[in-house]
Amino acid sequence: MSSLLIGYYSKTGNTKAMAEYIAAGAREAGANVDLLPIEKVTIPSLPSYDGIILGSPDYYGGMAAPVKQLLDDSVRLHGQLAGKVGGAFSSAANIGGGNETTILGIIHGLLVHGMIVPGVAVGDHYGPVSINAPDERVERQCKKYGLLIADIARRLKDEG
Amino acid sequence: MSSLLIGYYSKTGNTKAMAEYIAAGAREAGANVDLLPIEKVTIPSLPSYDGIILGSPDYYGGMAAPVKQLLDDSVRLHGQLAGKVGGAFSSAANIGGGNETTILGIIHGLLVHGMIVPGVAVGDHYGPVSINAPDERVERQCKKYGLLIADIARRLKDEG
Amino acid sequence: MSSLLIGYYSKTGNTKAMAEYIAAGAREAGANVDLLPIEKVTIPSLPSYDGIILGSPDYYGGMAAPVKQLLDDSVRLHGQLAGKVGGAFSSAANIGGGNETTILGIIHGLLVHGMIVPGVAVGDHYGPVSINAPDERVERQCKKYGLLIADIARRLKDEG
Amino acid sequence: MSSLLIGYYSKTGNTKAMAEYIAAGAREAGANVDLLPIEKVTIPSLPSYDGIILGSPDYYGGMAAPVKQLLDDSVRLHGQLAGKVGGAFSSAANIGGGNETTILGIIHGLLVHGMIVPGVAVGDHYGPVSINAPDERVERQCKKYGLLIADIARRLKDEG
Repeated sequence: MSSLLIGYYSKTGNTKAMAEYIAAGAREAGANVDLLPIEKVTIPSLPSYDGIILGSPDYYGGMAAPVKQLLDDSVRLHGQLAGKVGGAFSSAANIGGGNETTILGIIHGLLVHGMIVPGVAVGDHYGPVSINAPDERVERQCKKYGLLIADIARRLKDEG
Repeated sequence: MSSLLIGYYSKTGNTKAMAEYIAAGAREAGANVDLLPIEKVTIPSLPSYDGIILGSPDYYGGMAAPVKQLLDDSVRLHGQLAGKVGGAFSSAANIGGGNETTILGIIHGLLVHGMIVPGVAVGDHYGPVSINAPDERVERQCKKYGLLIADIARRLKDEG
Repeated sequence: MSSLLIGYYSKTGNTKAMAEYIAAGAREAGANVDLLPIEKVTIPSLPSYDGIILGSPDYYGGMAAPVKQLLDDSVRLHGQLAGKVGGAFSSAANIGGGNETTILGIIHGLLVHGMIVPGVAVGDHYGPVSINAPDERVERQCKKYGLLIADIARRLKDEG
Repeated sequence: MSSLLIGYYSKTGNTKAMAEYIAAGAREAGANVDLLPIEKVTIPSLPSYDGIILGSPDYYGGMAAPVKQLLDDSVRLHGQLAGKVGGAFSSAANIGGGNETTILGIIHGLLVHGMIVPGVAVGDHYGPVSINAPDERVERQCKKYGLLIADIARRLKDEG
């Protein structure tokens, strides 16, 4: 069994709803999931997870500052997250409005930590994206993504 | 009056339709527009334009290889495009499927040429995006974008 | 005469030194420059500038959280920065360590604001980059960049 | 034992030299490595590998067109590379000249294929970068990267 953190920042509830769908998918795959708003995520807890998924609304083409602050603060334990699985998701107000650059900004941070990031062959390739409130398409993408991350985290953990 | 090149690669006709809407917007703003499939664009012609807009379908999160080939070939006149206005647009099969990274890949190439790239405050921020066939929203975004690029090209040209 | 804001976040002094070189280049081009640490930049002042250049160290492949916070807070005046000139620069500890993604993350924010972003044909193409303390190469890149941004800001202002 | 493909495009020999160092690292980790110039890579062979690493010089901030063409052509077997490990590397003429965007452009393509991409906690975070001819630093980065990719490919393969 793998343990996952899903941390999200949400003002309108859209990113939170996505986080819940991802958690549902990951739990279906047997993962132990901590689902937390970003302000409840603590730096010392991070190395205890096999996988970390972060979500943010798209603010000016990037993650919200509180999510970036968490990444910046995590420098204290730099190196301890290497080899863990990472993922990202975002919600935005418009198509073409920065949802991909928001996800990729988070992914850059996870790669700098030496984490391992999977893409998605069919669907939202870099991570789930919602334009405004998540609809059924987004729910499906999120559940699938949670399952994918949980599965890779379990396989890498088993194999140590 | 400014002169613009709109070069596009299109298999399904979606990217071509976007190019035509952008051309319509630019012509409305008084620009002299050459609208060409990428294989008809010649390298020696590039410095004659005040602005260059390139469009591509999203192939694996980036521009189609023939568009990249044009950029690669343009190295022959490196430096001669500096200070000109640049823009990009893309069509894709999915939301979250690489439409933004396709546009930004083109924009990176234009920036390396020293071109000047405007964003869009309201709408598709990095450049127009169509998910499948362009609908009315996309038509509006494209016309607005053509107008924006034509306007900046004209202002920079007048001021020389 | 154009007026520029150069806002930077700096812990070690490297990003600050770059900001000073950029300011020197912009002043040489006749610009009126406000050079400020990011915590002294106020949102209501932003629309008064013809151009805005933001600099940050590379933290996890992106701008430092306080720089992101400024961008997030600037949503209050969204639309008022459209058409202004924008630029970015970064300092990093390693080659290949995220300096380009830091600059591009800032540029994404400026494009979302509808700002106009120039690239550099010869040198650091997306904006000046320093690996550790700025050396002579970086000083040259920064001065040139300040001059470039000041020049475009002036031309766009004159032409209104 | 895992099997890896290292495909590269090289005009000056710099990217080829990097490819050879990565191959050396991967072989040290026990991987079976095919080291091939991009024009010798065949699409039908791709699904036979546990991991694929692609390298390119930085041309206008992105991979060379022949590398992009390979990605575009690989659409024929879309889905068959999902879950494999992917990596990227680049050589460039300048710091800040597009080496990171070149690597990330390749990584976007691998993520769209559903591949799994690791970052590097210490060193060149997104993948190895050489500024001009590879020096000792680059040699070290490349060997380490080959070893990392080989190790993850082996672990994911064992665990199936």
